[in-house]
Amino acid sequence: MRLAVIGASGYAGLELLRLLASRPGDEVVLVTSRQEAGKGLAEVFPHLAGLANYDRLVFEEPAGLAGRADVFLLAAQHGVAMTMTPELLAAGGRVVDLSADYRLTDPALFERYYAPHASPELLGEAVYGLPEIYGEKIKKARLVANPGCYPTSVILGLAPAAKAGLVDPGQIVVADSKSGVSGAGRGALLSNSFCEVQDNFSSYKTIRHRHAPEMVQELTRLSGREFNISFTPHLLPINRGILSTIYVKISPSATLVDLLETYRVFYKDSRFVRLRPQGQSPQTADVRGTNFCDLGIFPCGLTGLVKVVSVIDNLCRGAAGQAVANLNLMTGRPEGHGLELAPLRP
Amino acid sequence: MRLAVIGASGYAGLELLRLLASRPGDEVVLVTSRQEAGKGLAEVFPHLAGLANYDRLVFEEPAGLAGRADVFLLAAQHGVAMTMTPELLAAGGRVVDLSADYRLTDPALFERYYAPHASPELLGEAVYGLPEIYGEKIKKARLVANPGCYPTSVILGLAPAAKAGLVDPGQIVVADSKSGVSGAGRGALLSNSFCEVQDNFSSYKTIRHRHAPEMVQELTRLSGREFNISFTPHLLPINRGILSTIYVKISPSATLVDLLETYRVFYKDSRFVRLRPQGQSPQTADVRGTNFCDLGIFPCGLTGLVKVVSVIDNLCRGAAGQAVANLNLMTGRPEGHGLELAPLRP
Amino acid sequence: MRLAVIGASGYAGLELLRLLASRPGDEVVLVTSRQEAGKGLAEVFPHLAGLANYDRLVFEEPAGLAGRADVFLLAAQHGVAMTMTPELLAAGGRVVDLSADYRLTDPALFERYYAPHASPELLGEAVYGLPEIYGEKIKKARLVANPGCYPTSVILGLAPAAKAGLVDPGQIVVADSKSGVSGAGRGALLSNSFCEVQDNFSSYKTIRHRHAPEMVQELTRLSGREFNISFTPHLLPINRGILSTIYVKISPSATLVDLLETYRVFYKDSRFVRLRPQGQSPQTADVRGTNFCDLGIFPCGLTGLVKVVSVIDNLCRGAAGQAVANLNLMTGRPEGHGLELAPLRP
Amino acid sequence: MRLAVIGASGYAGLELLRLLASRPGDEVVLVTSRQEAGKGLAEVFPHLAGLANYDRLVFEEPAGLAGRADVFLLAAQHGVAMTMTPELLAAGGRVVDLSADYRLTDPALFERYYAPHASPELLGEAVYGLPEIYGEKIKKARLVANPGCYPTSVILGLAPAAKAGLVDPGQIVVADSKSGVSGAGRGALLSNSFCEVQDNFSSYKTIRHRHAPEMVQELTRLSGREFNISFTPHLLPINRGILSTIYVKISPSATLVDLLETYRVFYKDSRFVRLRPQGQSPQTADVRGTNFCDLGIFPCGLTGLVKVVSVIDNLCRGAAGQAVANLNLMTGRPEGHGLELAPLRP
Repeated sequence: MRLAVIGASGYAGLELLRLLASRPGDEVVLVTSRQEAGKGLAEVFPHLAGLANYDRLVFEEPAGLAGRADVFLLAAQHGVAMTMTPELLAAGGRVVDLSADYRLTDPALFERYYAPHASPELLGEAVYGLPEIYGEKIKKARLVANPGCYPTSVILGLAPAAKAGLVDPGQIVVADSKSGVSGAGRGALLSNSFCEVQDNFSSYKTIRHRHAPEMVQELTRLSGREFNISFTPHLLPINRGILSTIYVKISPSATLVDLLETYRVFYKDSRFVRLRPQGQSPQTADVRGTNFCDLGIFPCGLTGLVKVVSVIDNLCRGAAGQAVANLNLMTGRPEGHGLELAPLRP
Repeated sequence: MRLAVIGASGYAGLELLRLLASRPGDEVVLVTSRQEAGKGLAEVFPHLAGLANYDRLVFEEPAGLAGRADVFLLAAQHGVAMTMTPELLAAGGRVVDLSADYRLTDPALFERYYAPHASPELLGEAVYGLPEIYGEKIKKARLVANPGCYPTSVILGLAPAAKAGLVDPGQIVVADSKSGVSGAGRGALLSNSFCEVQDNFSSYKTIRHRHAPEMVQELTRLSGREFNISFTPHLLPINRGILSTIYVKISPSATLVDLLETYRVFYKDSRFVRLRPQGQSPQTADVRGTNFCDLGIFPCGLTGLVKVVSVIDNLCRGAAGQAVANLNLMTGRPEGHGLELAPLRP
Repeated sequence: MRLAVIGASGYAGLELLRLLASRPGDEVVLVTSRQEAGKGLAEVFPHLAGLANYDRLVFEEPAGLAGRADVFLLAAQHGVAMTMTPELLAAGGRVVDLSADYRLTDPALFERYYAPHASPELLGEAVYGLPEIYGEKIKKARLVANPGCYPTSVILGLAPAAKAGLVDPGQIVVADSKSGVSGAGRGALLSNSFCEVQDNFSSYKTIRHRHAPEMVQELTRLSGREFNISFTPHLLPINRGILSTIYVKISPSATLVDLLETYRVFYKDSRFVRLRPQGQSPQTADVRGTNFCDLGIFPCGLTGLVKVVSVIDNLCRGAAGQAVANLNLMTGRPEGHGLELAPLRP
Repeated sequence: MRLAVIGASGYAGLELLRLLASRPGDEVVLVTSRQEAGKGLAEVFPHLAGLANYDRLVFEEPAGLAGRADVFLLAAQHGVAMTMTPELLAAGGRVVDLSADYRLTDPALFERYYAPHASPELLGEAVYGLPEIYGEKIKKARLVANPGCYPTSVILGLAPAAKAGLVDPGQIVVADSKSGVSGAGRGALLSNSFCEVQDNFSSYKTIRHRHAPEMVQELTRLSGREFNISFTPHLLPINRGILSTIYVKISPSATLVDLLETYRVFYKDSRFVRLRPQGQSPQTADVRGTNFCDLGIFPCGLTGLVKVVSVIDNLCRGAAGQAVANLNLMTGRPEGHGLELAPLRP
């Protein structure tokens, strides 16, 4: 299989190259980068020198790509994929888009949070790339919309309860999420400079964040009702990792034991969701560099609420790792092909 | 004024010595440390060499202290103050206790979370040392119970709303708190070792934490009703700082504008609470090394909830700085005497 | 005394404002910033709100400043001071320049490392602002060239040995320096972004760095011979702090004991140099936020070399703190006025 | 091949398990840990749950191990291997020892730096496990002494020059090394606690460190003369990574171009040494999680010295990764089997 990585000089693109370097079978035949076009991959990123065929790859401009690969992994900024995808598909290619372009099915909602959509006709076809929920559809998809990092962590934390109708609508669900800095991408921003982030912590986009409607869309689908959720992102002084602490009131008819059993059954065949034994808090380092999502479920000692703690690696499970899992499913391989990696800890 | 710092080799004790080093007027005449007794202060802690009279101070055993100082700042482990305080008071001393020993007024509750109380007869006299709420009582107090770090951040974030009856009891309040590692004290623990914390993040004591009943006690007092709150502490890979994100439903009769005005009026004469302009998220680095508590108040873009973001320095405002503010009030000085420090940023 | 801080929105400028906020006596009457001109100081930097007179200060453009203050603290980029200083002096002002503009006395050398000099006539008058060496000259100076951060750490580590002729020229001195990120200034650079620096370490400008000729100039003056030194800067994933490890061969006629005594005598009246007891390694955190330079002197267990370990806070002793010390000396105050601060540790 | 990991609950042991989890072919059949004996591997280390056969492994006491595996990877404290190895070999096992027990060939030197040796008769047989130098011997070895982390970084940085006689003995070589905290092992030490290390930097064991004689031994062998080197370790606030900056005077008869060519030839067939293009500084993050050693060679702009900058991951190339490379060579596999991993960056 010939693979293309579009936007290969960003952190999600580089993470794809990291994972694909030790994944047997397919070959990366094409890497693009507006900024680095014309330069050798290993010249710009010496940490990748000597791996796979990377010493021979040269960054290209992202133009005229149709037909040059079998699967295109699009790791560009929002807005690029929705212009580029139609021609890639038309030439027989398949696409996993890591941007937000095909995640929301309602083009009006997309426009409100991003921009007018350039290929709304594909929104119906695009499959939301969360294997635990849409695994069967992903296998046959031409176009997969890889989920956002925050939504991955929150939806996986709530999906079993939402689907089973165990969430009491009388208490608005709170999802308090904390992310490492790589989620903001590879770029020069004062707000992401070392001295502004190190030994510091803050919330950001506290009123409204683009990832919220994606959560609402999927949790509404799963629960069959308008799902109300209050989401706040925070910036952690770490490179990678998202931890979401989710506060839920469960239905009066259900017990914590019911809830735990619901989660166990929901995820029993999932390669990459690990339920923690009771009382054990998952840590972001437990999944560093991997496609795992670890979940801990706790009763609140003071109130009737339940706390779900969900951790992922935002660059891996929240972006490139999930894209590779989708690539695996689309090409008839096991979900974990090339992803059976142990976390780098410490 | 002769000051004593008991438990001076822990992080709260060292923070007291930092603040007192550049505070005019009083003199530290006595420092104790079980571990370091007999050694010179500047020998064990060379960063304090050459400051104030510290080169001449020698750590002593914490025994036979009554009468040796006018005010005792107790920064020992929980359980020490409740044994030591009666004799210090009897000899005419005054006490600011930084431990939990005198924070809860109900000895049964204290026993449930800590241990049987050794001097319950003082629980009624002890004043909860939050100057914004108990300033007048603190001025006359012999014994001040310095608040816990998490409670300081959460109570200051909720006090105006709780007191004004603006919190809708139909939605359980969520307080999601994140703390730097120094809150765990100065000790050798694998779970606080660098490699376990750095580039990592997790919740801990997710089911139940000792600081929760302190919040409930004070918020119940302020609101005049049993105050329900779900609290979760998390461990940030930073040295200092607590940020609490608090999710509240405000009463249907009130607007966000009412709430903001309530906070403004409540804190208008407070030296150390800074309300942020709307939309601006406070960061823990904004208060590093100071006694400030910065508050930001935000509407949730998706739900009717309000988010209050509260930041303090856990060692300063959450411990030693607040103790010095209480010392100031107890001795007729302005609350900010010796505390008019700018944050160390970056 | 009316003070002006020019370039107040950079890290050195902000550090000046931090120190001046709790320093009695003088008042900051003027702050400039090209980027933030027209905005309130506390609006842009909320961590400084409520301190000194800062809520009332508004950033101005750096133009037409002559006569508006008694002492100008110039914390601008290299190249600004050499244009601005002549008119400030002409109007009777005095200047402490934190940039490199007046550090090198040879304009040809300045041009080689920086740019052609705009006011070379002042190079002879400017006093190199290292109080331990030029204290008496600083007291009478109109124009003080505040030393670079790396040179401060290296020169203080070598000065006693160099001056006493104890450095054996047969072994080239090695100065291996490691600096926190704030030394690079407050700006948006990919190479200083959190994800590029955190959990990472590297040398930079390994072949040649602008601070080297400053070291050579001063050590040549002190030793009375052309002083040969190999210097390498490295980037530490910390906010503040420089540690220089200096490898010296001492003259065959001298012993380690002689060397230690030489250092003791040289620094015996210095307020801000602390010599460590033998065997104790100074740490950058021991001086965080202060004007101290801590020195440790060690024999090498394997060779005849001596290792001098020198730590400073690059923003404080390496920039703003040293500038305030110079301001103190220039205005007849004790060197430590407003600088008697304990390190923020942890 | 049946593999045993002895001391599997330390950081080097855990790193072995990380690497072996995705390495095809062999199986870990035995893990020991004094502290965790009797507990399930994935129970104690949930980050390894669901990988390889790890859910089924239970930590055992390190006793009665002879014959239970084909190759034993000993990652215990110094002193354990020298007692345990004779019986493991006697039962036909082969050993890669990650401790210092078999690194020094002179038992008197070992005793001076560590303790009396329990099996000195094996010192002559043990092969120093640096594949770039002893690759052929390793292939046939029963007992491989895996090099120390600092020596790996320094020896690889100097080997080509030392062997070719290009190091001028007139200037003592300086090796200034900086290591991440994981090098100190997994344990509860105040000096390695987060608040003591974070945002801090220091040298340690500045006079004498145990790894120095190992460097001297190997560089003396390579150069054929008593090799003089001044070595200083420093503690970086990062989890993993060693960077050594090495200052060398090259022989008057040689040029920098000669030196570069010597390095190129020396390492031309080495899978895991990457020479950087001139002027490019290697960073520790460039090798994070991998077996690579990246080398940069620079002229000093001020003196005639040459600077060699060497980076490795101390846990991987400096311990477990090198052990796996040795295991590969010992068992007839390519050096890189299971080690063809891209660095985790960021």
